Amino acid sequence: MTPFRSIGVIGKRREPHLPTLASLCQVLRSQGCEVLVEDNPALSDAPAGRRVSRDELARSVDLVVVVGGDGTLLDAGRSMAPAAVPLLGVNQGRLGFMADLLPEHLAESLAAVIQGEYETEDRMVLSARVLRAGGSTADAAPPRIAINDVVLRNQASIRMLEFESWMDDDFISLHRADGMIICSPTGSTAYALSGGGPLMHPSLQAMALVPICPHTLSDRPIVVGGEQRVRLVVGGDEQMPTTSLQATMTIDGQISESLAVGDAVEVTRGDAPLRLIHPVGYSYFAILRNKLRWGRGQEAVIER
Amino acid sequence: MTPFRSIGVIGKRREPHLPTLASLCQVLRSQGCEVLVEDNPALSDAPAGRRVSRDELARSVDLVVVVGGDGTLLDAGRSMAPAAVPLLGVNQGRLGFMADLLPEHLAESLAAVIQGEYETEDRMVLSARVLRAGGSTADAAPPRIAINDVVLRNQASIRMLEFESWMDDDFISLHRADGMIICSPTGSTAYALSGGGPLMHPSLQAMALVPICPHTLSDRPIVVGGEQRVRLVVGGDEQMPTTSLQATMTIDGQISESLAVGDAVEVTRGDAPLRLIHPVGYSYFAILRNKLRWGRGQEAVIER
Amino acid sequence: MTPFRSIGVIGKRREPHLPTLASLCQVLRSQGCEVLVEDNPALSDAPAGRRVSRDELARSVDLVVVVGGDGTLLDAGRSMAPAAVPLLGVNQGRLGFMADLLPEHLAESLAAVIQGEYETEDRMVLSARVLRAGGSTADAAPPRIAINDVVLRNQASIRMLEFESWMDDDFISLHRADGMIICSPTGSTAYALSGGGPLMHPSLQAMALVPICPHTLSDRPIVVGGEQRVRLVVGGDEQMPTTSLQATMTIDGQISESLAVGDAVEVTRGDAPLRLIHPVGYSYFAILRNKLRWGRGQEAVIER
Amino acid sequence: MTPFRSIGVIGKRREPHLPTLASLCQVLRSQGCEVLVEDNPALSDAPAGRRVSRDELARSVDLVVVVGGDGTLLDAGRSMAPAAVPLLGVNQGRLGFMADLLPEHLAESLAAVIQGEYETEDRMVLSARVLRAGGSTADAAPPRIAINDVVLRNQASIRMLEFESWMDDDFISLHRADGMIICSPTGSTAYALSGGGPLMHPSLQAMALVPICPHTLSDRPIVVGGEQRVRLVVGGDEQMPTTSLQATMTIDGQISESLAVGDAVEVTRGDAPLRLIHPVGYSYFAILRNKLRWGRGQEAVIER
Repeated sequence: MTPFRSIGVIGKRREPHLPTLASLCQVLRSQGCEVLVEDNPALSDAPAGRRVSRDELARSVDLVVVVGGDGTLLDAGRSMAPAAVPLLGVNQGRLGFMADLLPEHLAESLAAVIQGEYETEDRMVLSARVLRAGGSTADAAPPRIAINDVVLRNQASIRMLEFESWMDDDFISLHRADGMIICSPTGSTAYALSGGGPLMHPSLQAMALVPICPHTLSDRPIVVGGEQRVRLVVGGDEQMPTTSLQATMTIDGQISESLAVGDAVEVTRGDAPLRLIHPVGYSYFAILRNKLRWGRGQEAVIER
Repeated sequence: MTPFRSIGVIGKRREPHLPTLASLCQVLRSQGCEVLVEDNPALSDAPAGRRVSRDELARSVDLVVVVGGDGTLLDAGRSMAPAAVPLLGVNQGRLGFMADLLPEHLAESLAAVIQGEYETEDRMVLSARVLRAGGSTADAAPPRIAINDVVLRNQASIRMLEFESWMDDDFISLHRADGMIICSPTGSTAYALSGGGPLMHPSLQAMALVPICPHTLSDRPIVVGGEQRVRLVVGGDEQMPTTSLQATMTIDGQISESLAVGDAVEVTRGDAPLRLIHPVGYSYFAILRNKLRWGRGQEAVIER
Repeated sequence: MTPFRSIGVIGKRREPHLPTLASLCQVLRSQGCEVLVEDNPALSDAPAGRRVSRDELARSVDLVVVVGGDGTLLDAGRSMAPAAVPLLGVNQGRLGFMADLLPEHLAESLAAVIQGEYETEDRMVLSARVLRAGGSTADAAPPRIAINDVVLRNQASIRMLEFESWMDDDFISLHRADGMIICSPTGSTAYALSGGGPLMHPSLQAMALVPICPHTLSDRPIVVGGEQRVRLVVGGDEQMPTTSLQATMTIDGQISESLAVGDAVEVTRGDAPLRLIHPVGYSYFAILRNKLRWGRGQEAVIER
Repeated sequence: MTPFRSIGVIGKRREPHLPTLASLCQVLRSQGCEVLVEDNPALSDAPAGRRVSRDELARSVDLVVVVGGDGTLLDAGRSMAPAAVPLLGVNQGRLGFMADLLPEHLAESLAAVIQGEYETEDRMVLSARVLRAGGSTADAAPPRIAINDVVLRNQASIRMLEFESWMDDDFISLHRADGMIICSPTGSTAYALSGGGPLMHPSLQAMALVPICPHTLSDRPIVVGGEQRVRLVVGGDEQMPTTSLQATMTIDGQISESLAVGDAVEVTRGDAPLRLIHPVGYSYFAILRNKLRWGRGQEAVIER
């Protein structure tokens, strides 16, 4: 594979792990790389390295190394996917679903990757936008990228939400539920999994619609093709006065936008995938087995 | 669409519904069609029409009309998919998932279809074969078509089964469970749904692996691409003496084959899809809403 | 059974169904009953009848007839259970889980009940109070009655909640989830059911703890005895800054109270049960079969 | 607590762990106990100790120590519960749900228990019997004890089962499913958990009815009181010719009995509980946390 020359570094925003960042920058420079560090007030003056904005990072580098776990990687991924900059995740804590390089193997693993020994994996991302009730196309906000999921929920927790789901021009159903998760294959191991959704292999071009605590017991997760356009339309009826409605669209659990009755959330596949860089020998299922504690000796059930 | 001229008719094997079959043949002939009826001892001498074997039917007709519900359609579909003969389902009882023509609308609906007013829908099918432990390729049985699902289970109900799952050459996991369902999108509304699997839109090219009563609570359904090759390898260990093993592969709940320790069930996408013919205006989601009783007034939960 | 003489009437608060209320009052008076109607601005001047506050109702009547569905019955039940006044529910819409008298059978069914032909059913209720972090006993708010459930949730929907669960002095677990539902057997057909909880027969003295979208897949519903004291303690850690926490306790989906880190929700069995009055021949399972659409012909799965 | 003087020892039937058994007998004798070992062809001549039948064991000892995991303990428990002999479980492998003494702590833990430092825990058991279709009471087989569960299933795996459920004289529902698990609180962590049933605290006097892969999505687990009598009646209809029926009742996954159409399985609470002996400091929830891997750091879901 092509070696990387210009490397961006993004740390965890609130509490960057300075020793790991410093050692990372050192390893990168010892490999002859140019290192640009995303500017971040929490970084103080360490680690050394040119400080740039994330936008500049996206324009300038061949690879971004993210230090800090899956949450930081989601945030960085939303910026880098449209710019077609690949990401490599270094986890600070235990192994992540996506951040699969552990700090203790940093030097050797990173050197190999920089020199071109790596695997690439393209992950389909989602593109979400809000269509305002009765709004013209001009009103439409620009779409946002989601790596994991787009979630419709009622923040006024004492009320469930009523909403319609559509696939292209086909009406799917009217739902009464706490909300709905629309996830990518990558997001199938995130919130959607805790809501009862299926795992989806990351090579699949598909989205899952996972209702959250639905009032109808047969309102089950649906998987549709990645080329489909899914829309959720926020409803309101006499049972649910609009005054108690605080519908919200949330991207990757990190960015929220308020919705009113009649507003629609439209989700399609993003134009460009998120490209992940893995050390050679990467196995998606090995990570699943580790995270989900699969395999002999992990049974939770009395042996008969 | 192209009109149909030569029509095959397949009735429910054990208890064909003779009045519906007779009225069906009459409608077809009144439309100028040649009618071939699958031979079946239960048919007695009615309805009139040339009797042929299923094989001859598959070679001779433009369309097969199936009378009798989803079970009959599954059985007919396994024969017709490889021959690229499309199917139209006439239900005798309540609406089926696939048999979506009701007897009361038979004459008018059928006339329209015969004259070329219809919609086609291609459904991905599965191809399953058993690879015997230590066997050479020569031993391999020819693959079987499955419309809904390929199920691995232990018929000795007092024992769970231990088996490995593989996707191509990637090891997925070691399972301890009552078994595993591998289903097509069509089969996602069948046994897999009762086992906790997701719905999958029929246009999706994918398979779901749904463990049955797994001992590990995180052993959850996985959706993989239709182009993948899935293998389940029957295991055996000291906890589970092979004497109590009666592992079985079952196709669409209708055909079974015994398995021994070390045998593998291999599932891929079938070469040819199952082509369904629907009256104009067909909606997959309308059928789902009807069968799953979705929508307002169907809530199973106390209104708060 | 003892006939009823003094009857209270409670209508749906926001939109009382005046014709049903009027006809109800007439039937009751024609049976020689004294009728007291709960005062409610939405009632205008109809129906005729003495208007009293709910408190006075609770002190004065032998029976309360509730018109308006399960939601109205929950609200009335929380007031009447401590006063040991039995309730009879008249549903306006389709049959409710608890409001099991339909308006079309009002006159005859009600006459029979008033004259003493009825069945009584006592339903265990919950008692919930908030123990403030570091608070003295004096700080403790008086407990609230819950008919269905006590729900701990984070209203800031983008964040899950971390909390501990305790049964008496036994630590159960540390949870990371959207929240937790603690329900009575009556509430087992409400929100808890949509969260994956089990049905519990109303004669059972038990509570179910049902985690909402838990991050650990083995974090499953637990049923404990009605004599136990359950506590949920709101946590907070570095992963979840307290600034984004908006933890809330909600009673029967109708009354909410804010919680801070360290606050505990304590749930025990209420001192007095809710007494429901049913027409003779009442069957809990008949209502379940109706509401959950159980029985032949209701299968949601493809017939094999 | 009362010290124990006469101790029975039961090993795993097929592969007793001789070193553990020998060291166990030695510890017991060094504490001045009389030791009776259940006779078992697999035992050879070790360990030394008087060999007796299980029946004699049940009549003669104050305590039975079981070596070998939960399966062995279930088997021993069915014999000992009716005789009111308490059990202590020594696990050979990893910690069991019930066998909670590890071999490495055997000597010290056991000495303490023998001398009277222990906790007792009574577990409700089930009593199951088959009522033959059209049979007189005289035909009824004597009831069997079940520690975990009584399972109704169809061993002919290609067919689901149709059966009715009853609670005392109340009809619950008509089910179409792979089968039904009726479990005690102890069995709620066994097969029932893998079928989607709730956990039940062992102090609860209750049974859960857990349908296995039901065709109706609202056919959910139900918890009923321990004082109830539950009956499952095997059905048969035109959809399911009796020739393909191989209905079976299975006790604790270990003992099976064949059923015919019209036969009923009746389950009630057993007359005598199973008494478990635990070292001081025993915590049911600590075992659950260990077995189900609950707590921080065990999340299976992407951190947001």
